Amino acid sequence: MTNDFSEMIDRRNTNSVKWDVGADELPMWVADMDFRTAPAIVEAIKQKADTGIFGYEEVPDDYFAAVQHWYTSEHNWQPQPCWMRFVTGVVPAISSAVRRISNVGDNVLIQAPVYNIFYNSIINNGRHILSSDLVNNDGTYEINWADLAAKMAAPLTTMMILCNPHNPVGKVWQPAELRRIAELAAANHVTVFSDEIHGDITDAGHGYTPFAAASDTAANLSVTAVSPSKTFNVAALHAATLIIPNERLRNIVDRGINTDELAEPNAFAIPGTIAAYTQGADWVHALNATITANKQALTKFVAANIPQLHVITGHATYLVWIDCGEISHDSVKLCQAIRDTTGLFLSDGAEYGGDGDHYLRMNVACPPDRLQDGLNRLATGIKNFQK
Amino acid sequence: MTNDFSEMIDRRNTNSVKWDVGADELPMWVADMDFRTAPAIVEAIKQKADTGIFGYEEVPDDYFAAVQHWYTSEHNWQPQPCWMRFVTGVVPAISSAVRRISNVGDNVLIQAPVYNIFYNSIINNGRHILSSDLVNNDGTYEINWADLAAKMAAPLTTMMILCNPHNPVGKVWQPAELRRIAELAAANHVTVFSDEIHGDITDAGHGYTPFAAASDTAANLSVTAVSPSKTFNVAALHAATLIIPNERLRNIVDRGINTDELAEPNAFAIPGTIAAYTQGADWVHALNATITANKQALTKFVAANIPQLHVITGHATYLVWIDCGEISHDSVKLCQAIRDTTGLFLSDGAEYGGDGDHYLRMNVACPPDRLQDGLNRLATGIKNFQK
Repeated sequence: MTNDFSEMIDRRNTNSVKWDVGADELPMWVADMDFRTAPAIVEAIKQKADTGIFGYEEVPDDYFAAVQHWYTSEHNWQPQPCWMRFVTGVVPAISSAVRRISNVGDNVLIQAPVYNIFYNSIINNGRHILSSDLVNNDGTYEINWADLAAKMAAPLTTMMILCNPHNPVGKVWQPAELRRIAELAAANHVTVFSDEIHGDITDAGHGYTPFAAASDTAANLSVTAVSPSKTFNVAALHAATLIIPNERLRNIVDRGINTDELAEPNAFAIPGTIAAYTQGADWVHALNATITANKQALTKFVAANIPQLHVITGHATYLVWIDCGEISHDSVKLCQAIRDTTGLFLSDGAEYGGDGDHYLRMNVACPPDRLQDGLNRLATGIKNFQK
Repeated sequence: MTNDFSEMIDRRNTNSVKWDVGADELPMWVADMDFRTAPAIVEAIKQKADTGIFGYEEVPDDYFAAVQHWYTSEHNWQPQPCWMRFVTGVVPAISSAVRRISNVGDNVLIQAPVYNIFYNSIINNGRHILSSDLVNNDGTYEINWADLAAKMAAPLTTMMILCNPHNPVGKVWQPAELRRIAELAAANHVTVFSDEIHGDITDAGHGYTPFAAASDTAANLSVTAVSPSKTFNVAALHAATLIIPNERLRNIVDRGINTDELAEPNAFAIPGTIAAYTQGADWVHALNATITANKQALTKFVAANIPQLHVITGHATYLVWIDCGEISHDSVKLCQAIRDTTGLFLSDGAEYGGDGDHYLRMNVACPPDRLQDGLNRLATGIKNFQK
């Protein structure tokens, strides 16, 4: 098994959520890559399997050391092991933190368009969504600071869920922006939960800054969630880490993840994560080069062949946010039409809120040949829709 | 790898919760066996690992068919696949069900002495524990039916957690007993959550009856939780199944397990469980013969060498409940003294509530040689304590 990002792997009939599609359909929607994970992870899992004993597991110090190693070497941030807690996933941890940090009826602040599952974690727990929508300024999404400040100051706003880097717009937040968010949060007693699951997937020269690394203020009022899940395409490894420098906040969240039964690892989560974070760097760098090339290919293709669409330039995630406003402000209808006429299955922007009603989200984490198939279908689908 | 239940496997330094003990200590406490799991499970996990892709997974029909096959062939009960929901574990599912089925401040009925984690699921969610204590009638635990009826009828009692078979007393509830519980529950609008995680581990001729198989009434008001976890010693596989014949109740619980993020399997939970339930029967029958022999050896040893102790005859689980009332009514202190003087680490009965203050729980799921070591330490520990 090598780091081959061009292999066309058939994922049909493998219980894949992404590939539960019709025979001629091409799924480029959910954030799941069509690449095999890093060989070291597979090897670590098989070694664990060979032991044949899968009883109750503790999280060893080696696990936290591996997380620290990764963030030190990849992101120039050295979180302390004592700040960390293992959890079975970022989304379960968000839901748990919402229940512990905020109260029923409170506002939880987000920045739409944003990862749609944030909405579930807020609504399902009886909290209210308050969005300070991001603004597309000529192809680049920005924060409306006056709006954010006002919504931070609302009496019922107790928590903010930050997406750093930002899915679906692919924005790498800059240190100054993160510090400013932290200052507003501190002034208004708002706790920030920073979902950093996409942090490892960035273009060269555009590395992300962990929120807690932006300033002491940020570190002191935040819960950061990281995971090898997106980076190594191991959603079903069920492994993530919460990093909480503030002891009081850590104790509150810790109580929640224990009550909600998120703190115990399955047999493969620990060895898989340690392998990823100690042996996976080269694989990720090669992956990122592939994704960057795919994003560039997409941008070039769209400009040449589908000029009615406008690609938002994002330097993070393998998800491309495409403005389809010249064609339709009903992205649900447009997505369905593209799927119906070409089999290409994209995510409609509307599900992310904000201005997403005139956007499409396309997952480019696939071999270049498959991407080209998707781009051809996209061009055909747009042409069909406009007829 | 064969079905070898005599191999003395060194589990130290493997992140095992059970074996996180001192160098000379012998852990016979938490419900985790010192046996390798069935070879078919290891093989299925390795096959999955070899695919190298661990993205988001759906639960396939094959999974539910495997659960149905196991309960049909092993327990003469044919639950329908449409009644079933995958969950990541029995305990998380109990906590989730407590939140959905009962309200804050309600009573949740249990039968102490009982699995200590039930208490956490009730207390941590702001409900109250109401126990109808089991009664030891000359070595056999029985239900005090008048007491149970009264506690079922209490206005705040909305839910009962049944342990079927019963941990720690090893009791296999009989169909007539289960039907009578169901009648009381129906008369009082109480929902029964039946934890049947120990159901596969029984002495020959003493098979257990699933609660929902006892009567239509029982089926209609119950949530049954099953798992390969105890049976195949795969706690860290993170796989369990809820079986809920009643559609309305199923919808309520289903909503809870989704909000609580318990419904998505890790990459190995599905293939591991299918292998267990379709290829693991012979392994379990051999396991049960080993456990039965170990329980008999323990009973004989205690009668001959530690006559102050009285073993409760149980036909289920690999956990033996031992009356130490002639020696002490402070099982915490006795357990600690045994550990301090011999290194034998047992569970003190007090943590299970009820009359557990004068009981010890001993885990005999280990090779016969290791059991003998434990029994010798137990005899020494008791002798030391009585000095």
